[in-house]
Amino acid sequence: MQTLKGKIEAANLEAVTRMVKAQPMWNDVCAAGEGIPGMTKSTFLHAGPPISWERMCIPQKNAMIGAIMYEGLAGTPEEALKLIEQGKVTMSPSHPYNTVTSMAGITSYSQPVFVVVNEQTGHKGFCAFYEGPEYDILKMGVYSERVLKNLKYIETVTGPALQKAIRRHGPLNVKRLLAKALTMGDEIHTRNVAATHLMAMEMAGDMLRAGVDREEAAQTMELMQRSDQFTIHLSMAACKVMADAARNVEYSTMVTALARNGVDVGVQVSGLGDAWFVGPAQLWTGALWFGAYSNADANPDTGDSAIVECVGLGGMATAAAPVLIQMKGGTVQDAVDYTRQMDDICIMQHPDFTIPMLDGQGTPTGIDIRKVVATGNVPVINSSICHKNGLGQIGVGHALAPMEAFEHALRAFGEKYAE
Amino acid sequence: MQTLKGKIEAANLEAVTRMVKAQPMWNDVCAAGEGIPGMTKSTFLHAGPPISWERMCIPQKNAMIGAIMYEGLAGTPEEALKLIEQGKVTMSPSHPYNTVTSMAGITSYSQPVFVVVNEQTGHKGFCAFYEGPEYDILKMGVYSERVLKNLKYIETVTGPALQKAIRRHGPLNVKRLLAKALTMGDEIHTRNVAATHLMAMEMAGDMLRAGVDREEAAQTMELMQRSDQFTIHLSMAACKVMADAARNVEYSTMVTALARNGVDVGVQVSGLGDAWFVGPAQLWTGALWFGAYSNADANPDTGDSAIVECVGLGGMATAAAPVLIQMKGGTVQDAVDYTRQMDDICIMQHPDFTIPMLDGQGTPTGIDIRKVVATGNVPVINSSICHKNGLGQIGVGHALAPMEAFEHALRAFGEKYAE
Repeated sequence: MQTLKGKIEAANLEAVTRMVKAQPMWNDVCAAGEGIPGMTKSTFLHAGPPISWERMCIPQKNAMIGAIMYEGLAGTPEEALKLIEQGKVTMSPSHPYNTVTSMAGITSYSQPVFVVVNEQTGHKGFCAFYEGPEYDILKMGVYSERVLKNLKYIETVTGPALQKAIRRHGPLNVKRLLAKALTMGDEIHTRNVAATHLMAMEMAGDMLRAGVDREEAAQTMELMQRSDQFTIHLSMAACKVMADAARNVEYSTMVTALARNGVDVGVQVSGLGDAWFVGPAQLWTGALWFGAYSNADANPDTGDSAIVECVGLGGMATAAAPVLIQMKGGTVQDAVDYTRQMDDICIMQHPDFTIPMLDGQGTPTGIDIRKVVATGNVPVINSSICHKNGLGQIGVGHALAPMEAFEHALRAFGEKYAE
Repeated sequence: MQTLKGKIEAANLEAVTRMVKAQPMWNDVCAAGEGIPGMTKSTFLHAGPPISWERMCIPQKNAMIGAIMYEGLAGTPEEALKLIEQGKVTMSPSHPYNTVTSMAGITSYSQPVFVVVNEQTGHKGFCAFYEGPEYDILKMGVYSERVLKNLKYIETVTGPALQKAIRRHGPLNVKRLLAKALTMGDEIHTRNVAATHLMAMEMAGDMLRAGVDREEAAQTMELMQRSDQFTIHLSMAACKVMADAARNVEYSTMVTALARNGVDVGVQVSGLGDAWFVGPAQLWTGALWFGAYSNADANPDTGDSAIVECVGLGGMATAAAPVLIQMKGGTVQDAVDYTRQMDDICIMQHPDFTIPMLDGQGTPTGIDIRKVVATGNVPVINSSICHKNGLGQIGVGHALAPMEAFEHALRAFGEKYAE
């Protein structure tokens, strides 16, 4: 008879294999309300595990207010607050909606979303668009008039331009795009300059032939040209479908979601279904601060984007992007050390995502909660940093996932699978 | 009184400083005949040092025949040969025309050229366009009907599109573009995927706003998207003006040109004006061969593109592009070793061209003929490989510059500057 350890290892191999073999195809752009099952005009999706309005961090509260105003449900922040207090809007984590939401942002009905489908299963993942490289954007916790106007611009110009482009282009294999970008110095969380250029160039011809207005096509190309991070939102949707492919494998201790709401960090585990195991969101252990900002000004780690770390990118691929760690004051050796540490808590090295500087070694892939608890190494999450009081982006850094979340998960796993 | 050694070192510092401080601005595209001083309808510029028709390698002969037909001076290869035999066309190295020509290619009157100007001096450099990623192109030594038709396409579609784009965009600092591409895994000789994407994205908006026909703009973007090497020709023009900035510094032993015609490799030296010092062109010491090709099929090292090695790129920056050396069967350690060896023969590490994997160390820059002869290390040149009988590109590799050329140069230097 197979031991528990044997069952877990077989299950983890099954889970990680499903994940690395998934083929996430970007095949459409549509309005969130049109694509995301269950989405209504009054549904507002935030990042991270569930959280009450009272416990929410200020940036996420700001974005919630901004999104309600953007949807036209309220004319003022006060009206938006009233709707929230009266329970007239649904505030939910994004993951149950097959959606991932970046940073403190909110995904709402009218926003255009990237639609990525796992071609093997038909399962879909969604993520709203990047708003631009400015510091004051909704996802950084700001809801000014400029922010709302810009969201409307994304909805009416960028979204339709990329919708026409991808529909004419046909499905684009995002995994292949990301694998190429890794060979060009991206780690696909806070460095996406190669991925963005590759994606935009892939779309350019079709965008023009699909009849997008000349000026709007020019603006869309320029938005991507000056937004090194543009494709992270497409990548998040792709990582979501890759990670979802590994869900619900009985006995698997592999992490299928790692998500932060700026207060709590939640972990989901393949063998434990949709349950969240949480610990406190952390401040920044390595960072490039804009201006004189520091941890004293920073919101703790926020966003669903840590889905990229779940599939072997971002912090797992730190050694693929030496320039990024150098920006944050580290060295190449630090980058290599991070990747080696992550190797200790992961199930395998990715067959397609490779690190040039390590002679093509695959990135550490498939976080095993047992290994996290046993080694004391927690996943390193690369992320942008937003101001705790809603002043927008103030840096780029990396934060550690809280050990508590993995301990809770492992305890629950032990209870469920005790023999 | 200053010793000869002191004079040389001061001169080399002056030469290398002029080179690394040059600001090569891409500011135009025009027909070769319109931009290049002294260019006539019957002028045909080849790569490398001077060579007689008889001694020319087959790929360069083929390209000469093709270029004469492309210019409409001959209707058949036989007619072209007759013009050559009758001395009715001028065949010259490109360097004296402030021009660099890639591989076995020929720069002729009607071809569009990148115009790059050193903004400090007004000095210009020129290079014809990349023809596309196919194996059978003029610069790989092929002159088929397809090749000539494609040259006409580049002349009438790609050239005008980029001319309109750059004129609307305004001067683009190529040094800055290349510095960024080095942080994205390019070494700027046989890996230019990042540089090409960065350049194309920088032009996209202006190309559309400048009124380029929609279909022609789409095709131009697509040509760049599928041509990872597209910008090497722009970079060559930029490197030419950087290297030219260092010419004619009395007492300097720094190399200002390294150029191959497939038979001879020529070296020019700052303190020795426009004299060429030559040695035999070499076969390939490391290569990715297409199909079953090998050195037995290969033409020796060809092209003016080694101008990039003169300014600290290409073989000098091997460690910036680990993927490239891996393609050729080497390891990261080999790439680092090459760069360290090149350090031993160069005057300084470039202040702007840096290598992420070496924690931002500058690339070895400014080849000192004294150091080459003293150490026995010759420059490593990264290049494409063309078939010796004119079948087109058959691989990508690296070749060593011949020691003889450096020895001849050092002897001439000794004679000129003997005290």
